[in-house]
Amino acid sequence: MHFASDNTSGVPDAILDALRDANAGFAMGYGADRYMDALRDRIRALFEAPEAEVFLVATGSAANALACASYCPPWGVIYCHKLAHIEVDECGAPEFFTAGAKLTHVAGTDGKIDPNALASVLAQSGKGVVHHVQPGMVSLTNLTECGTRYSVAEISALAEIAHAHGLPVHLDGARFANALVAEGCSPAQMTWRAGVDVLCLGGTKNGLMGVEAVVFFDPAKAWEFQLRRKRGGHLPSKHRYLSAQMLAWLENDLWLDLARHANAMAERLEAGLAGHAQIAYPRGGNMIFATWPRAGHDRLQDAGAEYYLWPDHATWDDPDPIGARLVTSWSTTEAHVDRFLTTLASQNALPSGAALG
Amino acid sequence: MHFASDNTSGVPDAILDALRDANAGFAMGYGADRYMDALRDRIRALFEAPEAEVFLVATGSAANALACASYCPPWGVIYCHKLAHIEVDECGAPEFFTAGAKLTHVAGTDGKIDPNALASVLAQSGKGVVHHVQPGMVSLTNLTECGTRYSVAEISALAEIAHAHGLPVHLDGARFANALVAEGCSPAQMTWRAGVDVLCLGGTKNGLMGVEAVVFFDPAKAWEFQLRRKRGGHLPSKHRYLSAQMLAWLENDLWLDLARHANAMAERLEAGLAGHAQIAYPRGGNMIFATWPRAGHDRLQDAGAEYYLWPDHATWDDPDPIGARLVTSWSTTEAHVDRFLTTLASQNALPSGAALG
Amino acid sequence: MHFASDNTSGVPDAILDALRDANAGFAMGYGADRYMDALRDRIRALFEAPEAEVFLVATGSAANALACASYCPPWGVIYCHKLAHIEVDECGAPEFFTAGAKLTHVAGTDGKIDPNALASVLAQSGKGVVHHVQPGMVSLTNLTECGTRYSVAEISALAEIAHAHGLPVHLDGARFANALVAEGCSPAQMTWRAGVDVLCLGGTKNGLMGVEAVVFFDPAKAWEFQLRRKRGGHLPSKHRYLSAQMLAWLENDLWLDLARHANAMAERLEAGLAGHAQIAYPRGGNMIFATWPRAGHDRLQDAGAEYYLWPDHATWDDPDPIGARLVTSWSTTEAHVDRFLTTLASQNALPSGAALG
Amino acid sequence: MHFASDNTSGVPDAILDALRDANAGFAMGYGADRYMDALRDRIRALFEAPEAEVFLVATGSAANALACASYCPPWGVIYCHKLAHIEVDECGAPEFFTAGAKLTHVAGTDGKIDPNALASVLAQSGKGVVHHVQPGMVSLTNLTECGTRYSVAEISALAEIAHAHGLPVHLDGARFANALVAEGCSPAQMTWRAGVDVLCLGGTKNGLMGVEAVVFFDPAKAWEFQLRRKRGGHLPSKHRYLSAQMLAWLENDLWLDLARHANAMAERLEAGLAGHAQIAYPRGGNMIFATWPRAGHDRLQDAGAEYYLWPDHATWDDPDPIGARLVTSWSTTEAHVDRFLTTLASQNALPSGAALG
Repeated sequence: MHFASDNTSGVPDAILDALRDANAGFAMGYGADRYMDALRDRIRALFEAPEAEVFLVATGSAANALACASYCPPWGVIYCHKLAHIEVDECGAPEFFTAGAKLTHVAGTDGKIDPNALASVLAQSGKGVVHHVQPGMVSLTNLTECGTRYSVAEISALAEIAHAHGLPVHLDGARFANALVAEGCSPAQMTWRAGVDVLCLGGTKNGLMGVEAVVFFDPAKAWEFQLRRKRGGHLPSKHRYLSAQMLAWLENDLWLDLARHANAMAERLEAGLAGHAQIAYPRGGNMIFATWPRAGHDRLQDAGAEYYLWPDHATWDDPDPIGARLVTSWSTTEAHVDRFLTTLASQNALPSGAALG
Repeated sequence: MHFASDNTSGVPDAILDALRDANAGFAMGYGADRYMDALRDRIRALFEAPEAEVFLVATGSAANALACASYCPPWGVIYCHKLAHIEVDECGAPEFFTAGAKLTHVAGTDGKIDPNALASVLAQSGKGVVHHVQPGMVSLTNLTECGTRYSVAEISALAEIAHAHGLPVHLDGARFANALVAEGCSPAQMTWRAGVDVLCLGGTKNGLMGVEAVVFFDPAKAWEFQLRRKRGGHLPSKHRYLSAQMLAWLENDLWLDLARHANAMAERLEAGLAGHAQIAYPRGGNMIFATWPRAGHDRLQDAGAEYYLWPDHATWDDPDPIGARLVTSWSTTEAHVDRFLTTLASQNALPSGAALG
Repeated sequence: MHFASDNTSGVPDAILDALRDANAGFAMGYGADRYMDALRDRIRALFEAPEAEVFLVATGSAANALACASYCPPWGVIYCHKLAHIEVDECGAPEFFTAGAKLTHVAGTDGKIDPNALASVLAQSGKGVVHHVQPGMVSLTNLTECGTRYSVAEISALAEIAHAHGLPVHLDGARFANALVAEGCSPAQMTWRAGVDVLCLGGTKNGLMGVEAVVFFDPAKAWEFQLRRKRGGHLPSKHRYLSAQMLAWLENDLWLDLARHANAMAERLEAGLAGHAQIAYPRGGNMIFATWPRAGHDRLQDAGAEYYLWPDHATWDDPDPIGARLVTSWSTTEAHVDRFLTTLASQNALPSGAALG
Repeated sequence: MHFASDNTSGVPDAILDALRDANAGFAMGYGADRYMDALRDRIRALFEAPEAEVFLVATGSAANALACASYCPPWGVIYCHKLAHIEVDECGAPEFFTAGAKLTHVAGTDGKIDPNALASVLAQSGKGVVHHVQPGMVSLTNLTECGTRYSVAEISALAEIAHAHGLPVHLDGARFANALVAEGCSPAQMTWRAGVDVLCLGGTKNGLMGVEAVVFFDPAKAWEFQLRRKRGGHLPSKHRYLSAQMLAWLENDLWLDLARHANAMAERLEAGLAGHAQIAYPRGGNMIFATWPRAGHDRLQDAGAEYYLWPDHATWDDPDPIGARLVTSWSTTEAHVDRFLTTLASQNALPSGAALG
């Protein structure tokens, strides 16, 4: 019953096999391995973007911060939601890699930036006034940190506003595959066709050991990115172990299958929570935020269930009912879900919706 | 015949097996995995340093830059050899992570800092004068970038000078295991007992996929380091894959066996080069820098041998004879070495030592 | 009729005279002039702080950013009001000097941080969690950017909360003198006795050419500050011209007289606006934010009055009525004020309060 | 007998008068004053560069660091002499403002970069190799830190090499006027016509209180510079006091007259030293580095002469003879010089040149 994060899961056998295969013999380092050549081709084909440049790093924070730094100057503003991973969960990595850019919050419900709020903030951005930091870029996350999902139309609408102000759009895709299969669109539709300039394509949360691709749809920033990556200590010498993993992950749509499974498990979990918990946000993929009475938490904890309280600063001392974040992954099983639900519901059904506050 | 770098080699089966074992089930991320607990204990025991703090990152540049940043302020000087990896081969990572420290060269032959030169530089350091950058730390590399080795006594002598000026000592140990087995001392003798304050213990060049440990013998900097690591995008979420690898590497002295093998292959190679090439530096472990006539290079290139010209800026247009850097690894075989030597010597013995100039 | 800013005013003759006196002969640079010795003594006496360290810089942004950087690490948070000068008007100087700290807004009306909001934000600060930036310091401004004033009791209350969380308190005192004379307390009461750890004592807006003092009540940060100042290009070689100015400014309470005059002019202006304009904030010193019908603006503009529209992003295209920021200074005269008021009121009295919105 | 530095001198009456004139009335801040408009026109005319952009800051370190940061990326190299002010005397300001660039020494005698050395360093620069920092710019100083002078031809030769490698050229002109009048060329000849892309035109050492102009001959970097200046805390609010000073300084060739006087005093001093001291470098303007026996120093110290020992790390404990740096300024008088010389020579003539060794 591990629902703490999709990064607590392991990797499928296919990835282990790919590592073993790639281990044979010698390979030139730093990205000059043949797996990387194949991976680059594969991603270009998948995204219908023959000019795209692709680079790998080992963590999502590195991918995001390096991508942002490639576009946003030190005196720039990165417009993002106040719950964005880059704002909350990276210990200031974007500020570090950009040499001091400012992250400015743009309002919106359910973890999603509201187009009107973005337009309004940009209309008062202080552009051209030397006393003010200058508009730099817009950063979106899909799935969001609330587990919700931007539709293609929503991304397009935000990107249109950003581009109208001359700002590039970054997409933090730590859970891009989960969003993609839920949305049922093509990779191109969710990215460059919708106006995304640079994508951080997350592999780690969806079945890899620690591999993220930064995909520049406009290759102009490629060389600068590579220098920033090296300088940031993020250019692996034995690079083949990253590229071979991601290559195997993309083969035969494995990445999509893994994401579909994770989403299906979340759907099953959500369905089972009905009547027992209050769901906080419309589910976009494989994350659920829900609140239920303390007694249910007590039973789950006794049974060894693992999950984080929610919101971030929640504690067991909070008043009843208490919130939780539940994340499923490619390795979540129906049995995990069902045992969780059974434990939650075991003694008493939820007395009344009102009690959940 | 791959002698380009020890990072072109793969990993032993034991490491692949450890990854497969560690892959089972769920594990909390970010260093809270049980492999890390075991690894920390193991390193403390190996180094006879029960208070030491141990952290993992995926690249040597990250290890070095984060370690340096933990000790050297933005206005500080890192004293190092002009050929040091941190000076030459990390695209300014130390400057980036320290927010602008200066790397000042200290002279010395064979890639090793000369104690008199260090004393002299520190005597004129500008300490306490606000116009000058301030002494920050001393950084050594063992093996050095010239493939030479500091003895324990040499490290102690340099550390004594550094400490007398209040400066901590960093040891870039990308090839620490190679140095250790060649020197025939204990890990403690080559590090904290000799005055090293922080060690970057390299695993990648000696049989791991991309794992380096930063070992703080004084734990005072541990929390700051962790924040810098996270902020630098270097805290892996699926951390178990790093810790499990290094744990397996340390078991049954595998790491030392791998290093001994690499060194033995270099010894064999060096012996065979006698009479055919001019050796540039006294060999400290698994690296050889040598010069031989162009004809020998031609034969080797035709036979598919891989190695870098040396020095860094050497090209095939340089006048005869031409230098090469040859690096052996745990996966170098006697057959590789012998074929290399046979190819080099196949047609003509070296006419005269003088010709190698 | 110059009400654009107190920094559009010149300096009193006493300052020009002091410059001429200080100009005679040679003087050692970089702060080793005798005026600085006298100034340091004078400030220590004025603030009843014999241990305080005092340093000069030429701009308020430099003073603030250097003071903040001396306390807040790169991964730290500076808690401030969303309208704070450091947040809005310094083009990211604090982020630059701290190497990437984050400025987090704390709510409060009238430009003043609310103690409950501060307590609440600090209770959820993420302290000790490596994924989050860490609490760094609290920054207050007095007078605030809304022209309001923190009382001594209010500063004490906020500082108590900050200190309870181990955070130092910075006071941006660009208009400290205006606040001081309005509050009618001693310099010590408004600073260290209330819990302020470092004060940026503004001279520029109150009669100097460009001189700000950074006063550390705890001298522990003095040497680091001096290195940061030099490295930031803020250590003047011909330092005497700064110290002589500020020394003359403090003599015979000139600085307080200048501030009292500015405040009195604002009081006169505010009184005259009654019935003609809607005042936005309780006046704390020498700044007034007010809204009145477009027709009044038209008359004032025709008459050559200078002031900024308010809020920052206001334009002449905004719907009636339109806001203005009015700032008086030591050189504002009663004639300036009266002419302004007469022009505003010349044709038509304000029809009704409701019309002002 | 003040020969410590030209920054220990005051300012001429004309500058004080200009300040008093500029003090009248109100003036918009941050560079929007009419003196700045006039100054910009004047500098454009003087340098025959109608497109040039001109910005003021208060210190030479700020001018240099901001100019360098406008051209050199964080992963860039600034090629300079090892004695350059930006390398030695700014506490790492260039590293700070560039966010971590590296200063690489280029050899050359008498404080001047040797063209062959520059060509050689650039030929091995590692350009295009991701592991190495990348060539960023070339920085020259005229007068140099050794008091020598680059001729127009020498600047041209170096700039040609730099430009051939795509690198811009920065000229640290803290003593530009001294170099200019000594060289007897036009401002354009010593700058853009010789290939200089950005000039830091020093006013402080030559009769101003603290005013330096950054002159961009290519205006492309103007906006970025302004943001960096503001963010660096170097945009003065009461800007008129800087622009009015420099405007008066340029009027009627005052700046050239001041420099000519300083140089003439150095010439007189140098002539008088003959037979009493060993001159270290060919004099380029207003600085002399010389060595003479301890007894002469003793007499001068007793008589209150002020100067720095040389080289930087020299002390009174050094063996006889001891070096000194002597700097003249616009306010040095013939009486100062003659008294210095008389004191030095008073008792004993220099026994033999050999003794000066």
